[in-house]
Amino acid sequence: MTVKLVVLYSRPADAGLFDQLYQDVHVPLVRAIPGLERFESGRIDAALDGGEHSWHRIAELYFADTAAMDAAFASAEGQATAADYAKIAPPGSRMFVETVDE
Amino acid sequence: MTVKLVVLYSRPADAGLFDQLYQDVHVPLVRAIPGLERFESGRIDAALDGGEHSWHRIAELYFADTAAMDAAFASAEGQATAADYAKIAPPGSRMFVETVDE
Repeated sequence: MTVKLVVLYSRPADAGLFDQLYQDVHVPLVRAIPGLERFESGRIDAALDGGEHSWHRIAELYFADTAAMDAAFASAEGQATAADYAKIAPPGSRMFVETVDE
Repeated sequence: MTVKLVVLYSRPADAGLFDQLYQDVHVPLVRAIPGLERFESGRIDAALDGGEHSWHRIAELYFADTAAMDAAFASAEGQATAADYAKIAPPGSRMFVETVDE
């Protein structure tokens, strides 16, 4: 039962600066998390429904199950990633746990 | 340059009924869309940040590029999927286009 941590980054004041910190510092921290099975990240280009362009980026971290995800964020690498997230995530960013359908 | 259509479904009044319509009717329509390279869908279990549990489900439809995505939704299958989405998506559901990082 694959689970994902889904992060919705709200739109930063300086998207260029955010993307630089994100790619150069944050992504390497994410990739070092033990138990991470897959990582996908991307830029939100447009709201297709005509509504507010609420989010700047989505990040998705896949783990085998919730136990693996819990262990990952209890690790030193997970803690370092969480600390960096707290530094860079624009206010209003959100973080959810998703159970992926079979 | 892979692009994704990302759908955030807001929380339905009747989650059981929604999930039944979603799995039995909507997902088969999605899977029939021409040019769809990958489809992933899952249930949001919790807001990890302690904030509002805003979303019930996330669906992600992967296409080779924006031209393929545009063609997909111009097709009869794409139109049928969009029409069904309009029927089942709870108010406040959102739809975005994401460019996936290389």
